[in-house]
Amino acid sequence: MRSSIADEQIVGLSEITEAAQRIDDLVLRTPVIELPHPVRSDEVLHCKAESLQPTAAFKLRGAYNAISQALPQAREHGVLAQSSGNHARAVAFVAHRLGLHAVIVMPENTPPTKVAAVRALGAQVELVPVAERDSRALQLAGEAEYVHVPPYDDVRVIAGQGTVGLELIEQLPNVDVVLVPVSGGGLISGVAAAVKALSPHTRVIGVEPELAADATDSWRAGRRISWTPEQTSRTIADGLRVTEIGAHPWEHIQRYVDDFVTVSELQIYAAMRHLAVAGRLVAEPSGAVAVAAWMHDLVPAEGTVAAVVSGGSVEPALLASVLNS
Amino acid sequence: MRSSIADEQIVGLSEITEAAQRIDDLVLRTPVIELPHPVRSDEVLHCKAESLQPTAAFKLRGAYNAISQALPQAREHGVLAQSSGNHARAVAFVAHRLGLHAVIVMPENTPPTKVAAVRALGAQVELVPVAERDSRALQLAGEAEYVHVPPYDDVRVIAGQGTVGLELIEQLPNVDVVLVPVSGGGLISGVAAAVKALSPHTRVIGVEPELAADATDSWRAGRRISWTPEQTSRTIADGLRVTEIGAHPWEHIQRYVDDFVTVSELQIYAAMRHLAVAGRLVAEPSGAVAVAAWMHDLVPAEGTVAAVVSGGSVEPALLASVLNS
Repeated sequence: MRSSIADEQIVGLSEITEAAQRIDDLVLRTPVIELPHPVRSDEVLHCKAESLQPTAAFKLRGAYNAISQALPQAREHGVLAQSSGNHARAVAFVAHRLGLHAVIVMPENTPPTKVAAVRALGAQVELVPVAERDSRALQLAGEAEYVHVPPYDDVRVIAGQGTVGLELIEQLPNVDVVLVPVSGGGLISGVAAAVKALSPHTRVIGVEPELAADATDSWRAGRRISWTPEQTSRTIADGLRVTEIGAHPWEHIQRYVDDFVTVSELQIYAAMRHLAVAGRLVAEPSGAVAVAAWMHDLVPAEGTVAAVVSGGSVEPALLASVLNS
Repeated sequence: MRSSIADEQIVGLSEITEAAQRIDDLVLRTPVIELPHPVRSDEVLHCKAESLQPTAAFKLRGAYNAISQALPQAREHGVLAQSSGNHARAVAFVAHRLGLHAVIVMPENTPPTKVAAVRALGAQVELVPVAERDSRALQLAGEAEYVHVPPYDDVRVIAGQGTVGLELIEQLPNVDVVLVPVSGGGLISGVAAAVKALSPHTRVIGVEPELAADATDSWRAGRRISWTPEQTSRTIADGLRVTEIGAHPWEHIQRYVDDFVTVSELQIYAAMRHLAVAGRLVAEPSGAVAVAAWMHDLVPAEGTVAAVVSGGSVEPALLASVLNS
């Protein structure tokens, strides 16, 4: 796919700093929380707590950056998105705050908490089988002139997510390693673009569930590799079930990312528990994978290590069972 | 007790702004998180998330402000504190970061999580019966020239806690009501001093458990009223079991605070659950009382309402049972 993306489609520092100014009024500058290592108490992980965004995840950054660049069309025709949850909620939140009509296509296996959050914001929700998510969104996009906000395969979205990296380098200028959850690749693309521009020595490492490791496979193969929805739906990390890295993210990953690692389901649960007890942060499974990689010594821990805790929308019963484990 | 406290012992804005500069390097400028009302989704509570401090509670502010003004003595003789947990952890944390010896007297009914956190910071812990906590600390203070850091009855501590109010007014300048958990009264004294100096129209309301309502009783009577340790130990909110408002806090409360309300144990549990699920914040019972008062419509909700979520150190099994309820 490399040839399909021109150089001007690669997000750099200027697009990210412009996004930061554009999204400032609705997006929280999230704190960086020190999480002690569960065994070696003198080691800490610096957690960028995107779980605290008003929509419970980083997705607000990219969605708002995209919508804010198409406001006249959005006001006239509304906005449209397809998402496993957090992107949907972000688009619905922006629409709610700006008074826009929003249509959201969600897969049927989305956790009820996430569906309810989107409906509470006044968006029109269409639940469809997982495999029909993208085709139904494209069909709707053909029926009216919605502003279609893709979840990750879009330079405006990537630039918005990149503001996580911009803030992190400002808050923790001496960071040596940054761990980032990977699904469609929008977050790590933006974060890596910002980090490499401002702190070239810092290593950026993607983290995936073992049960949804299409990006890790792609990284090792040097080309994008797809998994099936049946495969990726096995992980509890419902936000990371995308079956293939997006075309734009793939270009960014090849240029900017240093490595990929995977974590097991049990490691994800342990990270959720540790984040709640020792970090006072509620993370959803997808939001905890980068912490899981650090806790279980799957990444180099030399120097100052940071992780993006990407989201915090979790079913109460799941969090309770994790705490009791 | 009014006559025993001179006017120069009342904390004002200058002491609080000085404290803010003194404590900046170890204290987190905590975010203000919007929590939707559980029933009326168009209403939000602005939660000042002190649970995210590196010691899991606001106590770090006052402890560090006090210790930083007695550093030569602290370096030579060490620091001493008595506390139900979060103040102890704050003093131990400051001592650990500054390389000071720390002795902490803790009541025997302190939750194990809080005792372990203090020990992990290298402090020497003495567990004593609840009723002997203060007398044992005074005895130790007589044996060596420790810098004794009181948990609330101290103007340096009150000024440090006041930085919560200073930040809140900067972050939310149009706030109309501020809800604050009350135990010994140090937090509400400092917060109210800052809020009334910067935003005189804003109402400051103290919140206590019904089962440890000595401050509310005192407020209504116009004089300090004590409860017994047997009475206050009934509440799950272990951080709010102090049996009488401190002398210095009482002076501040009479000058600056507008009202007091109480919450039931079930209301506290409901607030912990709602904070975790809808706010992605882990709060301990004591940290959730102000949110409980708002959720259950026990305070005027007109205008912009904020609450201090004062701490987040909670036993995993308790949080799990709350999530399952």
